[in-house]
Amino acid sequence: MESEKLEEDEQIEESPEDQPELDPAAYLEALLQKARQAMRPLSSVSTVVKNKALFAMAAGLEEQSEQLLVANAQDLEAFAEKQGNQALADRLTLTPERITEMANGIRTIAALRDPVGESLGLRQLPNGMQVGRIRVPIGVIGIVYESRPNVTADAAALCLKSGNVCVLRGGSEAIHSNTAIAEILSTTAQQAGIPDGAISFIERTERETVIDLLKQDAFIDLIIPRGGGSLMETVTTHATIPVIKHDKGVCHIFVDADADLDMARKICFNAKVQRPSTCNAVETLLVHQSVARPLLEELGKQLVEAKVEIRGCRKTCSLVPEAQPASEDDYGQEFLSLIVSIKVVKDIDQAMAHIERYGSCHTEAIVTKNYSRAMRFLREVDASAVMVNASTRLNDGYQFGLGAEIGISTTRIHARGPMGLEDLTCAKYIVQGAGQIRE
Amino acid sequence: MESEKLEEDEQIEESPEDQPELDPAAYLEALLQKARQAMRPLSSVSTVVKNKALFAMAAGLEEQSEQLLVANAQDLEAFAEKQGNQALADRLTLTPERITEMANGIRTIAALRDPVGESLGLRQLPNGMQVGRIRVPIGVIGIVYESRPNVTADAAALCLKSGNVCVLRGGSEAIHSNTAIAEILSTTAQQAGIPDGAISFIERTERETVIDLLKQDAFIDLIIPRGGGSLMETVTTHATIPVIKHDKGVCHIFVDADADLDMARKICFNAKVQRPSTCNAVETLLVHQSVARPLLEELGKQLVEAKVEIRGCRKTCSLVPEAQPASEDDYGQEFLSLIVSIKVVKDIDQAMAHIERYGSCHTEAIVTKNYSRAMRFLREVDASAVMVNASTRLNDGYQFGLGAEIGISTTRIHARGPMGLEDLTCAKYIVQGAGQIRE
Repeated sequence: MESEKLEEDEQIEESPEDQPELDPAAYLEALLQKARQAMRPLSSVSTVVKNKALFAMAAGLEEQSEQLLVANAQDLEAFAEKQGNQALADRLTLTPERITEMANGIRTIAALRDPVGESLGLRQLPNGMQVGRIRVPIGVIGIVYESRPNVTADAAALCLKSGNVCVLRGGSEAIHSNTAIAEILSTTAQQAGIPDGAISFIERTERETVIDLLKQDAFIDLIIPRGGGSLMETVTTHATIPVIKHDKGVCHIFVDADADLDMARKICFNAKVQRPSTCNAVETLLVHQSVARPLLEELGKQLVEAKVEIRGCRKTCSLVPEAQPASEDDYGQEFLSLIVSIKVVKDIDQAMAHIERYGSCHTEAIVTKNYSRAMRFLREVDASAVMVNASTRLNDGYQFGLGAEIGISTTRIHARGPMGLEDLTCAKYIVQGAGQIRE
Repeated sequence: MESEKLEEDEQIEESPEDQPELDPAAYLEALLQKARQAMRPLSSVSTVVKNKALFAMAAGLEEQSEQLLVANAQDLEAFAEKQGNQALADRLTLTPERITEMANGIRTIAALRDPVGESLGLRQLPNGMQVGRIRVPIGVIGIVYESRPNVTADAAALCLKSGNVCVLRGGSEAIHSNTAIAEILSTTAQQAGIPDGAISFIERTERETVIDLLKQDAFIDLIIPRGGGSLMETVTTHATIPVIKHDKGVCHIFVDADADLDMARKICFNAKVQRPSTCNAVETLLVHQSVARPLLEELGKQLVEAKVEIRGCRKTCSLVPEAQPASEDDYGQEFLSLIVSIKVVKDIDQAMAHIERYGSCHTEAIVTKNYSRAMRFLREVDASAVMVNASTRLNDGYQFGLGAEIGISTTRIHARGPMGLEDLTCAKYIVQGAGQIRE
């Protein structure tokens, strides 16, 4: 579930109507105190109870789908009044089918192995002391997101399964839907034996509340922001809590001189068209000059047919009649839509230099049959995932076999790339001694 | 090498004399640009070349020990003028023996296995795509420290071995020594084939420079602060870069009813006295009421003989004549000196509640022969290291077999506890496909 992103100007809006009566700071503090109090009890809840709670949460969403649809209608009405665009309205919309999907997503997470308590090896040291590490929950995780309402369910389920308290703060455009989902999840979880506060949802939508949240290092151990550039900027500037960003993807595919051109076309087309609003969709194709004509003449037609707008270098424009000349801004841009920039390059060095300059270290791919260039690309390109002969769209927790993911991390520490259940844990050292002291 | 810490008021001093001529911001930017440029070339330097450079660095320090001693004398003179305390002066002092130790520390790091390039497993997925992860350097690491000059050598060597560029910023009290050490390391490394800028040292000692450094997320990927509370506060408040803190340790030992009392006395004594200025030294002893008398009557004498000041609860004071009554402030305090607080508790629950309330999640130990209480303590206590029947002083990279460490992380993500070479890397996903696309 790589994050889909809203446009900059649609983020973190204020909607002062319908706010609870407490002042924002007092509201947040009360909520965080309750969340923190749930941390220790939650960390020792058994897998059996956690799974029981997850199944109850899934059933709760389905059983109360009427309520969810009513809440969702309120969001859609408000969104229509603001004349938001259709693609975003569609993403915001809940249907009975989507509620079932959301519930099944939670059931999938229930079926995954619980990472908590896993031993990461135990060694006997020369002094006879046994030292090992075991996975433990991180603690309290704040998730700030702007995406579709299903993120509320996914994030709550992943945090619960990994023994973490979650503090969720969704976008104002989905506030009624998110509030209703969170209420059902929290209530059903609690009935199944999960401590009150373990699934906490912030109902306030003022921007100050987000900024205040980012500074609560006494209560929160990790902040995961999922969204667009302005959210990332806010988080970077204000957070005093460790952050794992799920930031933008400016992804490239380099089609090498020795590429299987049919494969190259399929990969490029898939990476752009299959779901262009995601962070692992390709934004720029880099094409070796020796295969530019055979590749682009046909790929150009396919892309144009799929309504992709092509912004190309001079050579590209000469091969694809519909292409418009690319400006400097068209490189390094995350279009998140059916736009692609294409540049013909001299060789792999020029391609890798372009990626280094314009890429965001998210997902980078090469299409080639040449062994040494494939290996060089894998070794030298710096990204969360580097691929040979595969679509960038495959950089994803489900596709990589992690089962589920909270998003794709663009931070270089702790978790890089798809962030699954294991990445929602940390390790603690366990020492079993027999009286050892430091000499 | 768990960090030794300066007192609050001795941190990040300004010493405006002898500053280079560039204005601080321009100086820092030039330095960071050079450091960032070294990142990509350094990441692909072979282990052989890195090791050669490390041996050259070690030899360089020994060969130029005269210069180092002259520089160190300048620091000591300035320190004496400010009437700094003797313990700190001692820590600041270089001797030919300490220079040899520093050089041997670098040689030890050269002998460790290079973590870069290590495969973390490769799996074949249902669609035939092979997905694995390999360790890569994090990138550019900023290290802000206040400790002894040897940290300059340790940090530079650990970063170099793990393929990371380091940007070092030591305390003003050791500025001449650190500058001289860094100059030798950087020059000899470069002569051995390491890119210029890979070992960067900030010669400016203004506080603004640290604050400016913490905001350079375009150039630096990770900040590791090593020092006292005021440095941690500065970093938390100002950093826009991910931070792994090496913060304080308020460590406890709980002596259970079923403890081997002779073992308990040895462990408690060692944890307090062997090196009290370290973060893994014990600060508070919690003693089960049923063994308070036999344990404390003798342990009290031993501690008093070793010049330890005891601040105890009422029961403790009744058993140890030299003990003074503990105030509330004596619990949860990191004394970093020969002071210990002692509290007699009713049972393991009261002990764990005390640890949860006053501890800093650093190192916590139980002394017991009781299996179920040992397991419960290991499972329920939240700390970077939890120990049964061993001294808290053993929570250390060397002692845990990591070979060397950059410090003991108190951050809950990425690395928790002793942070060795592996923790100075991150993973990148590698995908080897045969034309796979996202369906």
